[in-house]
Amino acid sequence: MVNKIEHIGIIVKDLEASIAKWKALLGLELKEVEALDVEGVVNKVAFFPVGPTNIELVYTTAETGLAAEFLKERGESIHHIAFEVEDVEKVFNELRSRGVRFVWDKVINGSRGSRVAFFQPEELNGIYVELVQKH
Amino acid sequence: MVNKIEHIGIIVKDLEASIAKWKALLGLELKEVEALDVEGVVNKVAFFPVGPTNIELVYTTAETGLAAEFLKERGESIHHIAFEVEDVEKVFNELRSRGVRFVWDKVINGSRGSRVAFFQPEELNGIYVELVQKH
Repeated sequence: MVNKIEHIGIIVKDLEASIAKWKALLGLELKEVEALDVEGVVNKVAFFPVGPTNIELVYTTAETGLAAEFLKERGESIHHIAFEVEDVEKVFNELRSRGVRFVWDKVINGSRGSRVAFFQPEELNGIYVELVQKH
Repeated sequence: MVNKIEHIGIIVKDLEASIAKWKALLGLELKEVEALDVEGVVNKVAFFPVGPTNIELVYTTAETGLAAEFLKERGESIHHIAFEVEDVEKVFNELRSRGVRFVWDKVINGSRGSRVAFFQPEELNGIYVELVQKH
C-alpha cells in the first residue's frame, strides 16, 4: 500500500534561520521553497532531499490551520510523516470506509502538485499521518 | 555527511496495540522487536521497514529516560529522526567542536548493534536528531 516515506514535516518558527541550520549541522542541500495554500491557509514549505525522502520545513504566518495550531500547542517539532501511495483517492476511500478519521474529509492539494489526505492524530499514536500521491 | 534517514522514532503507550494499528492502517510489516538498553534504561523498540528507512515504535516502562520524559510531557508522538552517517564518532566530534550540544556527551549503543548520538532538541527545531552508524 505504501511505497515510501515521501517526507517528514517539521514546524518551524523562522524559516530562513532553520534552513541555514539544517544545511550547517547535517550538510543537507535545499531543493525548493514553495508558498503552499492548504485549504485557504498559506504556508511556506522548504524541502531538503535525503535519499528518496525529504525533510520538509513548514512555516506559517497564519493564526489558524494545522501548522499554526500545532505550533501554539507544541512549539517547534516534528509534525507529520508523509507516506507515498499510488492512488490516494482509493486509499482514502478504503480507510474511511473502515472508520479511519481524516482532518479534511476529502483529498486536498499538497505541495509540489501532489494530492494529500491527513489522518486525525488519534488514529495512530498521536501522529498526523499524511498520504501523498505525487503527480 | 548524511547517507539516509535510517528511522523515525515514535513514542507509544501500548506496543502491541500500536504494532497492530501500523499493520492494519498502512499495511506495514513488522521486522523485529528488541529490548534496548539505553544507558541503563530498558525500552522495547519495534521496527517496520518502509523502503530504505524504518518506522521505530519506542515503548518504555521506565519512569526516567528520554522516552519516559517525552511521553509525560507530550504524550504519544514523533520523538526523533535518525540520520545514518558512516562514522558517528567523527561526526560527533566535529559537531561538538563546533558547539553542538548532545544529550549524552559521548556516542552510545543503539538498537540492532548500532552506535548513536542524539542532539539536544534546542539545536534543531526542537527535534531529537539522532546520528546512527550501523555496524
